Amino acid sequence: MAQRILGIDPGTIQFGYGLLEADRGEGSYLTAGVIKAPRSMEIGGRLHRIHTELLALLETWRPDVVAVEEPFIPPEVASRGGHRTSVRSAMAVGQAQAVALLAAAHYGLDVHRYPPSRVKSAVSGYGQGSKQQVAAMVGLLLGLSKPPEPVDATDALAVAICHLQHERLNTMV
Amino acid sequence: MAQRILGIDPGTIQFGYGLLEADRGEGSYLTAGVIKAPRSMEIGGRLHRIHTELLALLETWRPDVVAVEEPFIPPEVASRGGHRTSVRSAMAVGQAQAVALLAAAHYGLDVHRYPPSRVKSAVSGYGQGSKQQVAAMVGLLLGLSKPPEPVDATDALAVAICHLQHERLNTMV
Repeated sequence: MAQRILGIDPGTIQFGYGLLEADRGEGSYLTAGVIKAPRSMEIGGRLHRIHTELLALLETWRPDVVAVEEPFIPPEVASRGGHRTSVRSAMAVGQAQAVALLAAAHYGLDVHRYPPSRVKSAVSGYGQGSKQQVAAMVGLLLGLSKPPEPVDATDALAVAICHLQHERLNTMV
Repeated sequence: MAQRILGIDPGTIQFGYGLLEADRGEGSYLTAGVIKAPRSMEIGGRLHRIHTELLALLETWRPDVVAVEEPFIPPEVASRGGHRTSVRSAMAVGQAQAVALLAAAHYGLDVHRYPPSRVKSAVSGYGQGSKQQVAAMVGLLLGLSKPPEPVDATDALAVAICHLQHERLNTMV
């Protein structure tokens, strides 16, 4: 039975989404994009805009399941900016994640969370790669003639692919 | 002109709220409480429950303004639990704060944020004090015959008092 997987790469300035249709373990591309909230806007307004646009997407596309990149603060952020920066980034990630969780809960959808390393290795096999490389891999995996646009949304598609792989492994057991 | 101030002490397990009516710089107690989300519930379900109950509160009480305790991770958490605990706490605070910001934005309400030290000093004058002391001070400031119940909600009332003080100082200038 075909299943729609919405992958999300949460952020409070750029909030990426990518939708796949999975049929017998094969994923095909439906749509992808980035919800943008201007940095100049107050955080409450930004979250509200992202939440509203995300609800509209869910209403339009009716995914069956949501996969979210698990909040994660790279250690280098902590060491570069010190404790304060790290805590501030973690709060922002928590805020963006909350928007995704609330919208999914509004539609009664299950949410699966995957750490970034898992997402990257799902598409590149070795857990590394630039945004462009990830985009190229995502394009290849989905059999697209060129990498999906915009490149900022490919991380979200990678999250959806990661969930598809996870499900495929589970059914093989 | 009388104004209703909703104070919020955000959390993903206990989410405190306290409502005051302010008239000519004097605050009077309307209601206070804690929205509880069971620890056993998935984070998405908890945030959804808090969001739903908070929207119902806003619908019932129609505050004019919202004051939220600013996310803050005490340094001792970081040094006790290390970087990992600190980041995890910061994400949880961000999630709970996002719920408050989204609900306020839904009603087009302004949100003011205050750091915990500011909130404590608004009620105790020297920025210290146990939960019981804060409760007793809040009761005295609002002219209640006994401290407001439950004690867990008094922090949220203290946030509302903090905003009232802030406004009072602004009008004096």
